[in-house]
Amino acid sequence: MKYRPLAEAGVSVLMFRIRVRGFLGPRVPMTPLLAFALGWHPSPDMEPTEWIPATAPGAVQLDWARAQGWPAWWYGDEWKRYRWMEDVWWTYRTSFAAPPLGPGERLRLILGGIDHAGEVRLNGVKLAERTGSQTPLAVDLTDHLREENELRITIQPVPKSRATPENRTQADATTKAAVSYTWDFHPRLIPLGLWREAGLEVLSVDGIETAEVDCVVAPDLASASLALVVRTRGAGANRLRWRVADPRGATVIERLLLTSSTESQAEAALVAPVLWWPHDQGEPALYRWEVELVDAAGVALDRRGGRFGARRVALVIHEGGWAGATRSPQTRNHPPITLEVNGRRLFAKGTNWVSPHAFPGSITDEAYRDQLGLAKIAGFSLLRTWGGAPAPREFFFELCDELGLMVWQEFPLGCNCYAETPAYLAELEQEARSLIARLRPHPSMVMWCGGNELFNNWSRMTDQAPALRLLASLCWQLDPARPFLPTSPVDGVAHGPYSFRDHVGGGEIWSIFQSSANTAYPEFGCTSPTIADIAHAVLPEAERWPPRTGTAWDAHTGFEPGSFGHQTLATIEAYLGPVNSLAEFETKGQLLQFEGVRGLYEEARRQKPRAAMALTWCFNEPWPTLANCSLLAWPDRPKRGYHGAKLACRPVLASARIRKFAWAGGESFDPQLWLLNDAPQSVPAGRMTAMLVLHGERTLLGSWDFPEVAANTNLVGPTLALALPAGPPGLFELELFVEERPALASTYTLCFAPPDPAMLDVRGPAARRDQPK
Amino acid sequence: MKYRPLAEAGVSVLMFRIRVRGFLGPRVPMTPLLAFALGWHPSPDMEPTEWIPATAPGAVQLDWARAQGWPAWWYGDEWKRYRWMEDVWWTYRTSFAAPPLGPGERLRLILGGIDHAGEVRLNGVKLAERTGSQTPLAVDLTDHLREENELRITIQPVPKSRATPENRTQADATTKAAVSYTWDFHPRLIPLGLWREAGLEVLSVDGIETAEVDCVVAPDLASASLALVVRTRGAGANRLRWRVADPRGATVIERLLLTSSTESQAEAALVAPVLWWPHDQGEPALYRWEVELVDAAGVALDRRGGRFGARRVALVIHEGGWAGATRSPQTRNHPPITLEVNGRRLFAKGTNWVSPHAFPGSITDEAYRDQLGLAKIAGFSLLRTWGGAPAPREFFFELCDELGLMVWQEFPLGCNCYAETPAYLAELEQEARSLIARLRPHPSMVMWCGGNELFNNWSRMTDQAPALRLLASLCWQLDPARPFLPTSPVDGVAHGPYSFRDHVGGGEIWSIFQSSANTAYPEFGCTSPTIADIAHAVLPEAERWPPRTGTAWDAHTGFEPGSFGHQTLATIEAYLGPVNSLAEFETKGQLLQFEGVRGLYEEARRQKPRAAMALTWCFNEPWPTLANCSLLAWPDRPKRGYHGAKLACRPVLASARIRKFAWAGGESFDPQLWLLNDAPQSVPAGRMTAMLVLHGERTLLGSWDFPEVAANTNLVGPTLALALPAGPPGLFELELFVEERPALASTYTLCFAPPDPAMLDVRGPAARRDQPK
Repeated sequence: MKYRPLAEAGVSVLMFRIRVRGFLGPRVPMTPLLAFALGWHPSPDMEPTEWIPATAPGAVQLDWARAQGWPAWWYGDEWKRYRWMEDVWWTYRTSFAAPPLGPGERLRLILGGIDHAGEVRLNGVKLAERTGSQTPLAVDLTDHLREENELRITIQPVPKSRATPENRTQADATTKAAVSYTWDFHPRLIPLGLWREAGLEVLSVDGIETAEVDCVVAPDLASASLALVVRTRGAGANRLRWRVADPRGATVIERLLLTSSTESQAEAALVAPVLWWPHDQGEPALYRWEVELVDAAGVALDRRGGRFGARRVALVIHEGGWAGATRSPQTRNHPPITLEVNGRRLFAKGTNWVSPHAFPGSITDEAYRDQLGLAKIAGFSLLRTWGGAPAPREFFFELCDELGLMVWQEFPLGCNCYAETPAYLAELEQEARSLIARLRPHPSMVMWCGGNELFNNWSRMTDQAPALRLLASLCWQLDPARPFLPTSPVDGVAHGPYSFRDHVGGGEIWSIFQSSANTAYPEFGCTSPTIADIAHAVLPEAERWPPRTGTAWDAHTGFEPGSFGHQTLATIEAYLGPVNSLAEFETKGQLLQFEGVRGLYEEARRQKPRAAMALTWCFNEPWPTLANCSLLAWPDRPKRGYHGAKLACRPVLASARIRKFAWAGGESFDPQLWLLNDAPQSVPAGRMTAMLVLHGERTLLGSWDFPEVAANTNLVGPTLALALPAGPPGLFELELFVEERPALASTYTLCFAPPDPAMLDVRGPAARRDQPK
Repeated sequence: MKYRPLAEAGVSVLMFRIRVRGFLGPRVPMTPLLAFALGWHPSPDMEPTEWIPATAPGAVQLDWARAQGWPAWWYGDEWKRYRWMEDVWWTYRTSFAAPPLGPGERLRLILGGIDHAGEVRLNGVKLAERTGSQTPLAVDLTDHLREENELRITIQPVPKSRATPENRTQADATTKAAVSYTWDFHPRLIPLGLWREAGLEVLSVDGIETAEVDCVVAPDLASASLALVVRTRGAGANRLRWRVADPRGATVIERLLLTSSTESQAEAALVAPVLWWPHDQGEPALYRWEVELVDAAGVALDRRGGRFGARRVALVIHEGGWAGATRSPQTRNHPPITLEVNGRRLFAKGTNWVSPHAFPGSITDEAYRDQLGLAKIAGFSLLRTWGGAPAPREFFFELCDELGLMVWQEFPLGCNCYAETPAYLAELEQEARSLIARLRPHPSMVMWCGGNELFNNWSRMTDQAPALRLLASLCWQLDPARPFLPTSPVDGVAHGPYSFRDHVGGGEIWSIFQSSANTAYPEFGCTSPTIADIAHAVLPEAERWPPRTGTAWDAHTGFEPGSFGHQTLATIEAYLGPVNSLAEFETKGQLLQFEGVRGLYEEARRQKPRAAMALTWCFNEPWPTLANCSLLAWPDRPKRGYHGAKLACRPVLASARIRKFAWAGGESFDPQLWLLNDAPQSVPAGRMTAMLVLHGERTLLGSWDFPEVAANTNLVGPTLALALPAGPPGLFELELFVEERPALASTYTLCFAPPDPAMLDVRGPAARRDQPK
């Protein structure tokens, strides 16, 4: 092998070796990373007055805080200390001895990601600049090398389209993630710096620059065509060896390609391909491929490899969706939002992936592994990687490929009316091209989306917005087989609700959802307090209880200071009585999230096939809030809501449509029984029994002998009824059993005689069925 | 000048000289046309057994019918004779002597349009092939010339994706216009042949291939930037002289460009540009430009020129459209459909342009001029050139530029689920690229649209359809400043109704429209019988009256045989009494169209600003129907409906919202008064008076002293009421006058005591407000 790591070439600056995943191709072996010193300066032409140690990947803020010995950035109101860092320049500095280079060899600097804009100088000479954190930068240093070299990377201040207000609107002309400019669950903490790996690499004369395999499965699923594209360095003839192994490891394709171009292409066919399926529908089978550049003797000089999945994906109109619309004047049907994988229409259950960390350079592989594992265990099949936060790193998608988790990936636009300027559109095009090229090999990637809530009245973009026309065009040009959605929601799709009661219009979430008639629910949730010991760790002792404005509660509640979000303490107390401690706050509040979230998932499933998606807002959180809709408390601890989601997302379960959460003596309790089946197999006939546990007594509500239920189909059963006896306030339960199939059982905890009788009213003041259009 | 027409070069085949507009650039001076012989053959490798004279532009069907002495193709059931012509090959043949060519000169064949696929052979050698009628073909003949040459162009049979059924679905994998495969107003007559000019041209060594000027007006309208792109032939240095004259003829830009490339670019700025406006909002001011290739002495060797308009156009959300949608779960706002020109939101009134002739090669410049003149006189500002028919020729757009008529141009897709095959997508891309390049210089062109009713349940395409993603991408890449709509209707937009009563759900059109709440009405109309003497000319004498199935009425009614469309004789008689002749049929039926169409236009205007467009279906018709929604009877005679449209499309008028058309004694007649203003000026305060003329008596209903009405704004006035006295069946009138402003007056003709009392019922059996979604 001609590949020679820099360490062997005499370079001493060596920290550790990594395998860099996915930028500049599926896998690039890279040389050791560089150790940097870091300093800030108030204008680009000044020198830092102080140099501190720095790490890449990382963020200048974390380096600075570490050097100063500050408390954790998420503690109390520490975040306020970081504000000044947005508006200064930061310079990374390192030095290295020039490696001995053989004839024709080149030395290249690789920066995996500059957050957000910066320039590279070697020995005082500016060699490159870059704006946009998703596009790696490769800089050929060779012609400027001295015996001893100083490399500097200067990072510009945070891009802002306006000085005030200090909120997300400042991000409306940048591809930098909007969430960090302040969000309802996120403080103002705007990362800067080298958020991906930085290293040097010696390039041999001959080598592979990029290699990619595209797999297109025929509509009848009986065959697939593979297309290999390889870009190589060096003139003259190339000999490339291409191998493909099926999911069982057997070599199914082996080819030797002889080309005289730096771009080589080859095609091959797979007969009866082993299909990739989301985990709840089959096996996420992955093929492996490798391409080697070989010399005349067949010895490999360089190689690239990767995996692919054989699967088709489309967004289609739901079953029955073409009916109706027969009277004049006619308008169109709703846009398609049902995922069809390998010809099978799916109900996609899942959640919104925000980010495991406010500083994306600090997200570890382990965090991805742990959280995606939790997502799979919960029964989720689809993750919406939300456009307000940065796109995940490559490892995330590799795991999703392996785990059979589907990904809806958004471009970095969220809740703003993004600019129409040539500069912004050029940056967006560069970043989108990088993202598309990086993600398109992944079978888990099932759809692109322009960004979050861009067509809503707080954003005011439209179908005609240049940024969205550009993204649609790029996706078509670079990745035509994958669906593109301009934003979410589109017509027919709805976001919300987010709290147990609607604080604007009134009404309880179960009722609100039951009277909605949308085609997908890609964002809904229910706020809950975090886990009490996290709150303990976050809050200075004097601020812990009760919640007060003017304390660290403000920023950590995840909502406007003073409002304490939608999920107020008052709401919890109105249903469940007084709350006197962080522990009680957790217990009672998380019960509401548990039953709220599960009720929404199950209702969305009952609306199948018209509804085809249920994704909670949200899965993870980038810092420790004190109350949030997230199912995981920062960093990765499941709240009770996670378990509610997991129960509701079982492929097959006994379910009840319950009109409301709180009941009183004398009311007719009237759950409707359902057998929900999202599995690709039918459910045998059986008997479902419903029991009520109230005031310490178990009462038979009724039972239902259901017939066999077809694959991927729900069945509605009888509506039972029982006049509730009077009794003291408290909780009660509805238990559903299916004989001999305990895994299908469901137990719902409900509220009896709430302290505030207004909670018995499930409807808001206005008619819920009149959806604003 | 080095340009040398072929006639001077010794070519004898000469018919007449033309100026070819717009293909291969804004204006190409072309040599004389070729005279052809034409024959058909049952397979591509056979010879025709008979040769007849042929014309280009034209169609093989018309050549054949002329040679055989057949009656007019539109007479009786003549159309049935043409069926066999679809499935044979047709060859055009001509011969010519090679012109003497100077050093470096080339001889090129130009075919303006091959309908729909064919190949070119010179002296037995195949030189080119082409599928797609909108893309001109230029074939260099030079290297294959002999002293005497035989040129053959062989046309393939009609493309069909399936053998049966014989209807528009056969056109779902071709860019050929679907209408000719049979439509509800169109017989099966599928044109084939050379539908545009065919000629030879001698190319000098140096010359201009294409030249284009793009004008982008700044958002503040205070300046515009011009970009010139010129492609030239010949190596070496080029000297190009570029001149721009403002709408008054004054030279505002004059530049000499020296380039050494075959592609030259230049930019220039206009300060305070004279804006192009649609005719109802201002002057359609046009700049002129010319670029000349000059020699060292400044003598022009070649030139191109054209016009441009300085204007901005966008599709935006209507005023108030961002309100609402404040409750959870939220879906999106409707897509934008309000045209904004030069920063001014417009209510666009107009019609659907189908085609003036079933054989597009037969459409004359005069037909375009006459019909567009009628459109402007009617007060229309927007024409939707419907995707079911072929795009108009260049002259159409030149006239629209001059007349200040805006154009909504559709790609050639209509009412089908178009194919996803690589062959179809490649043909569509070629044709779309040609169309976009041809039309984008025109200021009249305000929007692109993917095609007609593609998202409705009879077509079943969606936002994810490859054909539409391709078109959106091409429009963005080639013409980013012009809006693109995937189809019509999109969400919020509605098509229909088309007849005086809804034959499916029941109800009368005024009432149906008054209870609709759409953002645009780009297709609505009211069927009426044609003008009686046209019916006389079309029908064999024995078939003229009464209408009977099994006669030529079937195809000419424009609806399924036997149904006689929606606008049945029975409906007319139910409102207006017995019909005993073609003349009475015309009179009574056209009254319904007159009042129907005008009522719909006015109601759409009353729904401003939420509604922003009202376009009747349809303006013209490609052949003489006996009943159709068209405002013009074939070829170009205004029906009464045209005059109803003209009254309703006055920029300013007195208008009444009248609940229904037919009334009876004892009912409360309760028109609501409106002052409609689409003009860019305010309307001074005044007094509107309403009079009822019933049973021969004029009764004052009431009057309204209205204040000044702002520009582009409507004002609603009082609702009057009068108990109608009993009386005999007949017609009555509501007259509205504005004192001292007679041009604003409106007189509505209404029906009293219809023969069928069921006509008094304006509502269908189902609740109209529940629009199917």
